[in-house]
Amino acid sequence: MKVGDRHYRSIWLNVDGRSVDVIDQRWLPHDFRVATLSDIGAVATAIRDMWVRGAPLIGATAAYGVAIEMLRDPSDPALDAAWQRLHETRPTAVNLRWALDDLRGKLRPLPVKARAEAAYRRAAEIADEDVEINRGIGRNGLAIIERIAAKKKPGETVNLLTHCNAGWLATVDYGTATAPMYLARDAGIPIHVYVDETRPRNQGAQLTAWELGGHGIPHTLVTDNAGGHLMQRGLVDMVIVGTDRTTAQGDVCNKIGTYLKALAAHDNHVPFYVGLPSPTIDWTVSDGIAEIPIEERSGDEVSFVQGRGPDGKTLSVRISPESTGAANPAFDVTPARLVTGLITERGVCAASRDGLLSLFPERRSAA
Amino acid sequence: MKVGDRHYRSIWLNVDGRSVDVIDQRWLPHDFRVATLSDIGAVATAIRDMWVRGAPLIGATAAYGVAIEMLRDPSDPALDAAWQRLHETRPTAVNLRWALDDLRGKLRPLPVKARAEAAYRRAAEIADEDVEINRGIGRNGLAIIERIAAKKKPGETVNLLTHCNAGWLATVDYGTATAPMYLARDAGIPIHVYVDETRPRNQGAQLTAWELGGHGIPHTLVTDNAGGHLMQRGLVDMVIVGTDRTTAQGDVCNKIGTYLKALAAHDNHVPFYVGLPSPTIDWTVSDGIAEIPIEERSGDEVSFVQGRGPDGKTLSVRISPESTGAANPAFDVTPARLVTGLITERGVCAASRDGLLSLFPERRSAA
Repeated sequence: MKVGDRHYRSIWLNVDGRSVDVIDQRWLPHDFRVATLSDIGAVATAIRDMWVRGAPLIGATAAYGVAIEMLRDPSDPALDAAWQRLHETRPTAVNLRWALDDLRGKLRPLPVKARAEAAYRRAAEIADEDVEINRGIGRNGLAIIERIAAKKKPGETVNLLTHCNAGWLATVDYGTATAPMYLARDAGIPIHVYVDETRPRNQGAQLTAWELGGHGIPHTLVTDNAGGHLMQRGLVDMVIVGTDRTTAQGDVCNKIGTYLKALAAHDNHVPFYVGLPSPTIDWTVSDGIAEIPIEERSGDEVSFVQGRGPDGKTLSVRISPESTGAANPAFDVTPARLVTGLITERGVCAASRDGLLSLFPERRSAA
Repeated sequence: MKVGDRHYRSIWLNVDGRSVDVIDQRWLPHDFRVATLSDIGAVATAIRDMWVRGAPLIGATAAYGVAIEMLRDPSDPALDAAWQRLHETRPTAVNLRWALDDLRGKLRPLPVKARAEAAYRRAAEIADEDVEINRGIGRNGLAIIERIAAKKKPGETVNLLTHCNAGWLATVDYGTATAPMYLARDAGIPIHVYVDETRPRNQGAQLTAWELGGHGIPHTLVTDNAGGHLMQRGLVDMVIVGTDRTTAQGDVCNKIGTYLKALAAHDNHVPFYVGLPSPTIDWTVSDGIAEIPIEERSGDEVSFVQGRGPDGKTLSVRISPESTGAANPAFDVTPARLVTGLITERGVCAASRDGLLSLFPERRSAA
């Protein structure tokens, strides 16, 4: 989406035709830095140290990492080593592994000298496919926003609320939760977005606010505590969030705190939607609360906050006593009963087994 | 309560018998600084700039401010000027005004030369009364914790969750929400407290965690986003929060985010209690959501976070883009239907008009 006057993706082929450029997201929102990744080591570092984050973007970055390595050495051992090296950067990232398996599966049967070109082509396809999926989510979500706008006076603002960053920075473009916002903006529907700060890593404050501002979408930063009050006072027309994993019965695993917003939406009759690319539906899991283990991350993410100091430099400050320990569950599960609908690239459905199967009938035999 | 080996109140008469000592809370949790307030100007600064905060403590501090001024000039004009000067420090603080009215009402009829001594005596009484009220809340809340402990295996920990700082630092001693915790600890009941960070001012991380640590109560800091997940996974036995104002029908106005925790408690059948001194019951208000205006504070509290930098100095860092505005509603209203019970100094009651009148029958005629 737009950064200033220019349209960016989060990843693109460098003008040299070999390296790949990414936005080094560690410095947002204060510095917009583009990093050129010219070898597999740089790609591995960018994934491991979270210069790039978000499942779709990690997958696309890894695919380009394989392509760059194939240019240097397209042999079978190099292909296997690239798979291994990139897989180790984020061993639990499902999409990373999917992209690496996909690349290796397609390259292995090819003659060695054809591999590099095929790898670059496939990496570009993976990136384009992600954009198309998100554009589909955007179109389907836009229809919901249009229906809300139609019930208002002409020109009256539609107020949305989102949590964390399920934005274009987490994908290749458009984002998942944000795609309907960008399409609504481009369609001239007046929207305004309440952006949850999203402690502990502040992705809302640091990334979503920056994204929306870049694309000219009016938005207001709020603490994670504020959403319930805003909904209680009728200030939110619709909540849209992303998801890391949606179960076959429609439970939604997403950034910690999503469940609290879903409770508030339910209590105040505010529609609560989840934007999700179909690859994030986990058909093997049904009851998200019982079956999904929640990643416990370092307590330091809670005890320290990163920001820009008075001298303009980015630094971390400690907010709690040194003797106080912190717990840091990274995700929570919103039960399907609190979700108004799931917005996928194929359409919108109820958060239920039947709802999902209506959009994905090919899964019916497996269910 | 305890800070290291010593028992402190949040305010006490200096050894000189004239000045008043307070904990300068702006530097917590990293620095424990005691400030000696020797004239009314210093008292006004301490209240206005939030060296002291919390309704009961502000009231007691203002009372001592009047006493200090009466020592200098006990005339009627000086008494009125003291009232005016201290009232202006936090013009919407109900307890501040109550303490000033109380002092002026009691001093005005006295001969001028008797006023200073009477003022010091009354200020000490106000402080002692607050301690007694909180001890009463503590005893009544302790009975609830004891009942929860009795249902567990012997020695098994009772897990509590609290939001913001309704602790001894916000009162003269014991606190409101924390009084049951301190009494449980002193009674040898094994408790552990999840402490919500409480953005945007981080009173949980900065004050409650510090308090509990000082008194040797095991506790864990969590983001405001985490409580729902913890309750969903059965990790919380009871929520206790404080309140700024409780309505005659039992709606609870408290720090922003309280409502979200009440929703999560309700959804997971976790008892949700509110510790409140009876002076904070507002018998003139019934429907908290419809009738209580919510203070909107500076967005800078959201955009900046204060903490200790790598060099050990306290500073603020900006977490969001400069172009992003922030909304900062400071409180929210938890409807009575989500509150399991109100813990007052007189006993525990249902969060309803009938419940409150059962404890405060003298209000029945007015109701």
